[in-house]
Amino acid sequence: MNVSTSIKDYLKSIVVEVEEALQDSFPSELGVPGQLQDAMMYSLEAGGKRLRPALVLTAAEAVRGNAAAREAAMPVACAIEMIHTYSLIHDDLPAMDNDDFRRGKPTNHKIFGEAMAILAGDGLLTHAFYAVTQAAKRGVPAETVLAITSDLAMLAGAPGMVGGQAADILGEQGITSLGELEYIHLRKTSDLMVFSVTAGARVGGATPIQLLALGEFARKLGLAFQVQDDILDLVGDEAKLGKPVKSDVTQHKVTYPYLIGLEQSKELVTRLTNEAKHALTRADLAAPDRLLEIADYLMGRDH
Amino acid sequence: MNVSTSIKDYLKSIVVEVEEALQDSFPSELGVPGQLQDAMMYSLEAGGKRLRPALVLTAAEAVRGNAAAREAAMPVACAIEMIHTYSLIHDDLPAMDNDDFRRGKPTNHKIFGEAMAILAGDGLLTHAFYAVTQAAKRGVPAETVLAITSDLAMLAGAPGMVGGQAADILGEQGITSLGELEYIHLRKTSDLMVFSVTAGARVGGATPIQLLALGEFARKLGLAFQVQDDILDLVGDEAKLGKPVKSDVTQHKVTYPYLIGLEQSKELVTRLTNEAKHALTRADLAAPDRLLEIADYLMGRDH
Repeated sequence: MNVSTSIKDYLKSIVVEVEEALQDSFPSELGVPGQLQDAMMYSLEAGGKRLRPALVLTAAEAVRGNAAAREAAMPVACAIEMIHTYSLIHDDLPAMDNDDFRRGKPTNHKIFGEAMAILAGDGLLTHAFYAVTQAAKRGVPAETVLAITSDLAMLAGAPGMVGGQAADILGEQGITSLGELEYIHLRKTSDLMVFSVTAGARVGGATPIQLLALGEFARKLGLAFQVQDDILDLVGDEAKLGKPVKSDVTQHKVTYPYLIGLEQSKELVTRLTNEAKHALTRADLAAPDRLLEIADYLMGRDH
Repeated sequence: MNVSTSIKDYLKSIVVEVEEALQDSFPSELGVPGQLQDAMMYSLEAGGKRLRPALVLTAAEAVRGNAAAREAAMPVACAIEMIHTYSLIHDDLPAMDNDDFRRGKPTNHKIFGEAMAILAGDGLLTHAFYAVTQAAKRGVPAETVLAITSDLAMLAGAPGMVGGQAADILGEQGITSLGELEYIHLRKTSDLMVFSVTAGARVGGATPIQLLALGEFARKLGLAFQVQDDILDLVGDEAKLGKPVKSDVTQHKVTYPYLIGLEQSKELVTRLTNEAKHALTRADLAAPDRLLEIADYLMGRDH
């Protein structure tokens, strides 16, 4: 895609690419029972920004400097969307957040029942690792695919996202400090962003120094994203967000605006985004522009 | 271990080895939240036969012909036990089989609550893939580790074990044929056995022809194991089994004895075990004896 395309159109075109690829996740020859397949695809096709796949593909292209890297990174982009989707299905369960709606549609267990929703989550989580291995068939060296597999297990697992979700649930009994809140946000949100950017960069052939700089970029970006989410829940437009605002307040959730105030939270988003962009410049990438644009786009988003 | 050691002592020594290795699954530097770590370790340390890890380690040694292969295969042995353990935690949930006890101890959600049990399952499932990647640090080639990763995702995921669990839940509304019951058993039980044997064999350096023969061995062995489970539930000794017998009858579960009768089920176990051993002889292994002994041991077991 031409660099002069606006970032919005660029991200839209990636959504189309990723959704096409996701549709082929469970070909019929795999023999997945029909209702399980339906449950997994229901949530996988439920839309969303596809931000994590976009970060994978954009990082791959940014490092290698040509669009061919995007093709090689697509299995990893699909993998992270499967992980993100499974985490939403399990988070929405009655035993967890007990949500009936997600993106304006009934949640998975409301349609397929709790047992099938648990299994759909387990199936998507497991299949993400199959998807990652498929990058080897697109010319990514086996050692690189293994490093991506290991990163995914760490950043999405008990030391990462699952740990963040556990801390969040335990914290509902009362988060008292910014440190605890930051731990939860770093694990629940930043870790998958760090995976997305660094895994894409690995596909693109990044050096260890580039991986470090890109990891810092993604960590700051992920935290900024989550603080912005907290802000939008407080002052956003329900129609644009596609969900009721002030749900954090009614659920007595501890957020950045709650702990440090709205203005300071907005300043924090700006500061973290600038720090992210600064880290990115240190990565000395072949084509950094789209990643910089994504950072600005996320800071300015209204949904 | 000396080949003259009885199969019972051999399997006992493997249990000790595997349990030692499992204890180091989540070192403190990973920073897993305490309660999540406790929930995962509670079920991982709850005992059991450790049959799947034993198959991994024994297959590795059988192919390579020396005990050094066991050392290289240990991360894979731990991985399959994490997968097996997560599947039990999720199966026991109120939305699934709603079991309060497992191996004489309260089930995970009875101790840690449903939310933490779901997350403990997710954490163990994800960490299994991290464990697999660690085989590369013990000299297993990256391509081999990737093949094992891909196999694990398929055989434990929606096309395998998770699919079998889904079919089982859907089938509770009425299995009518032996074909449907076999599908469930093949997916729920055989697939992890096939993974265990072939993954161990891959670590041992098996040829494609050996992998095929060992896959058939494991598939027959897994089916025999499950039919034997059905039989023991009907005529076994509660004290030896550590769980109430005739639970399948009281829960109106469709089993092999229910569909084809007790005597025919016993004959089926013998026939499948012999077919498994026959397949094994075609694999032309360096040291097949322990695998053959495991097949006989499983057929003769009373718990």
